[in-house]
Amino acid sequence: MTAGGDRVPPLPERARVVNVGLSLFADAVARQGFDVVNVDWRIPGGGDSDVVAALTRLYGPKSAAVDAANAEVLRRLDGSAPKATGIRAAADVVPGFEGTTLLHCGPPIDYADAIDPLRRSMRAAVVAEGWADDIAGADQQLASGRVGLEPANRHDACVPMVTATGPSQPVWVVENAAGGNRAFAPVNQGPGDTAWFGRDTPAAIDRLRFLAAVAGPLLDDAVRSHGPVDVLSIAAQGLHMGDDVHIRLQGSTNLLLRDLLPHLAALEDPRRVDLARFLAGNHLFFLNLAMAAARALTGWAMGVPHSSIVTTMTRNGTEFGVALAGSDGWHLAPAPAIGQALYYADHGPESAAPDVGDSAVLELVGLGAAAAAGSPAVAAFVGGTMADARATTEELDLVCAGRSTRLRMPALDLRGTPLGVDARRVAELGITPKITTGVLHASAGVGQVGAGVAEAPLACFVDAVMALDRTLSRP
Amino acid sequence: MTAGGDRVPPLPERARVVNVGLSLFADAVARQGFDVVNVDWRIPGGGDSDVVAALTRLYGPKSAAVDAANAEVLRRLDGSAPKATGIRAAADVVPGFEGTTLLHCGPPIDYADAIDPLRRSMRAAVVAEGWADDIAGADQQLASGRVGLEPANRHDACVPMVTATGPSQPVWVVENAAGGNRAFAPVNQGPGDTAWFGRDTPAAIDRLRFLAAVAGPLLDDAVRSHGPVDVLSIAAQGLHMGDDVHIRLQGSTNLLLRDLLPHLAALEDPRRVDLARFLAGNHLFFLNLAMAAARALTGWAMGVPHSSIVTTMTRNGTEFGVALAGSDGWHLAPAPAIGQALYYADHGPESAAPDVGDSAVLELVGLGAAAAAGSPAVAAFVGGTMADARATTEELDLVCAGRSTRLRMPALDLRGTPLGVDARRVAELGITPKITTGVLHASAGVGQVGAGVAEAPLACFVDAVMALDRTLSRP
Repeated sequence: MTAGGDRVPPLPERARVVNVGLSLFADAVARQGFDVVNVDWRIPGGGDSDVVAALTRLYGPKSAAVDAANAEVLRRLDGSAPKATGIRAAADVVPGFEGTTLLHCGPPIDYADAIDPLRRSMRAAVVAEGWADDIAGADQQLASGRVGLEPANRHDACVPMVTATGPSQPVWVVENAAGGNRAFAPVNQGPGDTAWFGRDTPAAIDRLRFLAAVAGPLLDDAVRSHGPVDVLSIAAQGLHMGDDVHIRLQGSTNLLLRDLLPHLAALEDPRRVDLARFLAGNHLFFLNLAMAAARALTGWAMGVPHSSIVTTMTRNGTEFGVALAGSDGWHLAPAPAIGQALYYADHGPESAAPDVGDSAVLELVGLGAAAAAGSPAVAAFVGGTMADARATTEELDLVCAGRSTRLRMPALDLRGTPLGVDARRVAELGITPKITTGVLHASAGVGQVGAGVAEAPLACFVDAVMALDRTLSRP
Repeated sequence: MTAGGDRVPPLPERARVVNVGLSLFADAVARQGFDVVNVDWRIPGGGDSDVVAALTRLYGPKSAAVDAANAEVLRRLDGSAPKATGIRAAADVVPGFEGTTLLHCGPPIDYADAIDPLRRSMRAAVVAEGWADDIAGADQQLASGRVGLEPANRHDACVPMVTATGPSQPVWVVENAAGGNRAFAPVNQGPGDTAWFGRDTPAAIDRLRFLAAVAGPLLDDAVRSHGPVDVLSIAAQGLHMGDDVHIRLQGSTNLLLRDLLPHLAALEDPRRVDLARFLAGNHLFFLNLAMAAARALTGWAMGVPHSSIVTTMTRNGTEFGVALAGSDGWHLAPAPAIGQALYYADHGPESAAPDVGDSAVLELVGLGAAAAAGSPAVAAFVGGTMADARATTEELDLVCAGRSTRLRMPALDLRGTPLGVDARRVAELGITPKITTGVLHASAGVGQVGAGVAEAPLACFVDAVMALDRTLSRP
């Protein structure tokens, strides 16, 4: 009561509550029947004072430089149309790919440190290349170091899951005219008993030989007869057909096959029937082509200095690595387990290998988890409803610097997918990109055992932010 | 005030309004900032006392008989899996298709009464069949009655737009094992300069000859090599890929082509390349196959007496006809204009032919407008947003007796599409089915000029309800 009066203001009849922070309090208020607005506020940078200081600089005095760099990165990720011009043996086109060497996913790794499915894939590749007579011999070649290992990402390439790519393997050649650069990814090996799922069986080795001897050359004829394939145009249509273009690619794969159909039919080689059978049974066929196109975009964007946008995000099953545009080094963290997944019968989290592969490049260009909102197939992995799928997209949107102008989601009334993962926002909010992915068996060599959603580890993004801050703080 | 007291109850602090009927009043209340619940009530049967009396009987004393019949119709529309087993010349498989005759869309019609695009299509068919040397000769054959005309629907068949089908034309053979019946639809002629869009040019005639001589026989080889095609399984997947399976069929067409790919590649006839080129350029290829499957379902359901569910809904461009399951006659109304449409450049409503074709059979089995909610392509025609597309589905849902258990829409969290148009509800609510459709030029023979949504005329549904009431009132 104040000195000037004795009237007590009446209590309001209706209380409206704004809750900031833990939703626990908001939930309690809501349960009592009151309206409540919940502000999902978190302590920035997890409360680490060094991180908060770096973020304060990167959002403050240095933001103009970072924002300008980010705008250029976004322009490069959004503004060009990488085109597949052919399919060639890796040794003939991948820069710096020489000698008795395999390309592999993720950051650099030694054979001894690789997870079981990756080691199996490498052994299958060594036998398929003719460098060993059998799996045991391949193991010796790899263990002794006589077969070299190179991260595909160091050679303008990327490979899905545990694909190990030898020099004979056919790769998509994707040209980005706007950036004057190229990128590469091997032709997808198909479902089932295949090396890219961590199998080293005779059938998996035969598949690699079929790809090198039959599928690669015939597909090259068909693609060159068709003319350059606008990869992101097909991906954009795929997004209108239920694809996230990472774990679901039925729409985009079929669009590509439809376009290639007359050129496949025109092949005089009777092995076109084997190729057609392989293609008709491979609903992920477009995956590797989408990855090569994404790698062409990120490869161009990597040339922009001082950006906080992630242009490399990749996993070898042991380590998870990210790099920002304009930065040389990769920031590493232990490979995460795959948090949410659906498993085939007789399998579960206990038999799952960690998250692995270069395919997370898709999440950097507005595909995969970025496009989850429109994909019933992804919904099945993130909670079961389309609302769960939309939430996956919305979460990535919180940490992205922009939205795609060409990759649009009917489920969100044609809004563009989140584009350009901003490591500042990741470090600030503690929200890391989710990645839609397959799940491999950890040890038994049985191949794929499920599919799900992995969550990138926060530490490597925070490291990247700190490194950017140091770079910009140099006199 | 009552005798027992003098207290006047206070006016409520907040008014909540329930409005019944015209939304005008509700809108006025809402504009003043009050909550309002609007009940979209309409005078049943448009206030016609005979219709109200018939509906009162059909929903009252006779409802048990009608509801039992409707349950059986729904079971037949929902519960079987029609399969395409091959492609044959119409004369060889369509029952009762004899002599110098063309099958056409919609109710019976004379050549003189047909709209211009239908007459053109008939003339092209007569020349393609070799019954006349040129278009002028074909006109004479048709005008004189030497070429007979038969509604496709009278022969277990249906044809899209103004397709006129001669005996040489290849038709899909679709078998419904559960019902022991078959249905037929010609192979789709493709986009552009073609007779089914109302063109009678040399190219349109050549296309018909190509279908008879090349596409039909080779497709038959490929389909038989593949084995029976489960048509509604593909349609159901198409619904997850943005198809309404009426004006948008990219997903379902490409799924079919993917399945057929190895069998097309295996054809030794070098004209497989011509076929492949035709297929790759025809994004509506699945339309006619879906129609044949729908006709197989409605054909089976037609055998159920005393149902109020529509099993025939078809248009010849002059008249619009419907029939209920178990009823012999068709109830006719003048063909409606196409209300909402997008037109190609230089065209508009003034040059549009009325709504035409047998394809509205799709709306009777849960496809087309029933599946609009998941189709961005349909959204473009009904207002532009996915909310508009959802409203189109929801409106049809109001007049349907059930929902499909196999045709499901991700956009409505996998709810089934509306199934079984109940003429009682149509007459009661005054809401008629919408039909997604192409738009043809009314007179100039230039073919398709747009696509849009037509609204079925109410009168023929009311007539059908009155006839059902009379049938059930017989002693």
